[in-house]
Amino acid sequence: MKDRDLYIGVDIGGTHMRTALIDGYGNIHKHQKVQTDIAKGAVQTSARLVNQCSRLVNEALENQRKVESIGLGVAGKVDHLGGRVIFSPNLPHLNGYPLAVELEQHLQVPVFIENDANLFGIGEHWLGAGRHIDNWIGVTLGTGVGGCLILNGGLWNGDDLGYMGEIGHTIVDPHGPWCVCGLKGCLEAHSSGRALMEGVEGAVSEKELNSGRLYDLCTTGELTPEQVYQSARRGNATANRMFERMGWALGLAIANLFTFLGIRHAIIGGGVSASWELFIAPLHKSLAKHSCMLDESSMVIVKGLLGDNAALLGAARLAQNRIHGRGQT
Amino acid sequence: MKDRDLYIGVDIGGTHMRTALIDGYGNIHKHQKVQTDIAKGAVQTSARLVNQCSRLVNEALENQRKVESIGLGVAGKVDHLGGRVIFSPNLPHLNGYPLAVELEQHLQVPVFIENDANLFGIGEHWLGAGRHIDNWIGVTLGTGVGGCLILNGGLWNGDDLGYMGEIGHTIVDPHGPWCVCGLKGCLEAHSSGRALMEGVEGAVSEKELNSGRLYDLCTTGELTPEQVYQSARRGNATANRMFERMGWALGLAIANLFTFLGIRHAIIGGGVSASWELFIAPLHKSLAKHSCMLDESSMVIVKGLLGDNAALLGAARLAQNRIHGRGQT
Repeated sequence: MKDRDLYIGVDIGGTHMRTALIDGYGNIHKHQKVQTDIAKGAVQTSARLVNQCSRLVNEALENQRKVESIGLGVAGKVDHLGGRVIFSPNLPHLNGYPLAVELEQHLQVPVFIENDANLFGIGEHWLGAGRHIDNWIGVTLGTGVGGCLILNGGLWNGDDLGYMGEIGHTIVDPHGPWCVCGLKGCLEAHSSGRALMEGVEGAVSEKELNSGRLYDLCTTGELTPEQVYQSARRGNATANRMFERMGWALGLAIANLFTFLGIRHAIIGGGVSASWELFIAPLHKSLAKHSCMLDESSMVIVKGLLGDNAALLGAARLAQNRIHGRGQT
Repeated sequence: MKDRDLYIGVDIGGTHMRTALIDGYGNIHKHQKVQTDIAKGAVQTSARLVNQCSRLVNEALENQRKVESIGLGVAGKVDHLGGRVIFSPNLPHLNGYPLAVELEQHLQVPVFIENDANLFGIGEHWLGAGRHIDNWIGVTLGTGVGGCLILNGGLWNGDDLGYMGEIGHTIVDPHGPWCVCGLKGCLEAHSSGRALMEGVEGAVSEKELNSGRLYDLCTTGELTPEQVYQSARRGNATANRMFERMGWALGLAIANLFTFLGIRHAIIGGGVSASWELFIAPLHKSLAKHSCMLDESSMVIVKGLLGDNAALLGAARLAQNRIHGRGQT
């Protein structure tokens, strides 16, 4: 690595596409955020991505610096070698689309594609809460629940099947609610932003909730995870129950993995982790209840330190490491 | 390693203590099996172990060969460095006992202690069903359910917390039966030899089963997992339901780990795996039902190849590798 080399980190979500020019030390030189606008289809998304990244490449050139490589984060299964999104629940128009290949052809810069929760892991491991921990589980709470696994100080890739660390689709209660993936009782069906909303909607249709602000938002279709959070903060019992369920399910899923992996650290990030104070106590209670191998005091659950930038920084780090042949992280 | 070096493998279970003289290629030169006789206490167990191993050391000497090291397998949490059993549910008299230290002092041969399910993993990886698979989950079905994890061709040790791969105490159904470990709904409470018996006992106390051979065995306190197996083979519905539950729970637990670890191989051994034909179909069905990341056809579940000798051979392999500084496996 030369001191003046730059990298582009990309994080494409269902709502926003974020791109940043990042140096080898993790300093963000320029940050951009535009709508993903998935309704316009994959070709449009790809064109918008090329446009955003071109601006950053030019920005670098104007400062006599060079973008060495690009790390591209997408929620879903990805084909690392083929530079393709295999399957993305929140960006279905990208399924099968060779997004990384197109970007590479247009910009003539090497592009490496990776799942966004794995990039969260790489980012937090590089500069965040996972910096000095060799083995840990990463969980990202957003519309869905993502995850990753850091082992021996590097991102674990398994048998390179196109997905990894999908804690959101481990089953915590086979009698629990249906998940968007088609299974019953996944962590994601209990602990995601979507689960918060569906839980409230369920309470409305069961007539457990039949008045008040949360009820109104629900019946007018304006409910968001943020509003469930605000209602819980104001003491709404239904909203609070959703966060208790979120913590309970996270505690069970993490306890299971600690028991099997013989490790004891987890780092939680993603937008919905901003509601930390509402789910962390139930999470700890559940962790203690569902682990027979470790004392509660041995298990360490911390919040990610990089906030919104974790995956973006992770993408830049991936780009940097891959181009310099240093493997995954 | 010199061609003529020998190792001792030990496998201490609740009922039997097995010891064998094994060479560096996995040939068993002499095999012994005696009662563990746990009622007589830890000092007696230790004395019996010293006696058994002394015979093998002398046997080697008579043939102008030398026992280089001993691998000692025990069900439960072990303290690798301290040479101690920390906690063993099936050998409670050994809790805290420095079994490996005593053996080493008496015989003046290095002794390495390890969990028996981890030794199953080392054994099958060395000479059995895991020989050519880099990443796999091991499951041992006995009185309880043990497990291990092979990653990158070696036994994964996690943060060296004294236990590893405890798939038996991952929770498959938080509303399920109580486990001996104190938790509710562990895999072990569904899929162990003990669970087979407790399931039948439950059916008797619920009056779902109120006549026949299985009922009689249950009421006279003579029920064994083997008899549940024989009854299922003869078409008894209650017994068959227990094996279906066993397969269902194994499928769910393994699916969860495949989903999180991004791997797709599992190897099942232990005495109760002899009932393979009764639980493998429900296991596959459950695996398919509980995995949204992999096709059923990608997931490979095979039976261990080394039978009763897996942990014994694994113990010898551990002894061999440790004394030659080759790490775990």
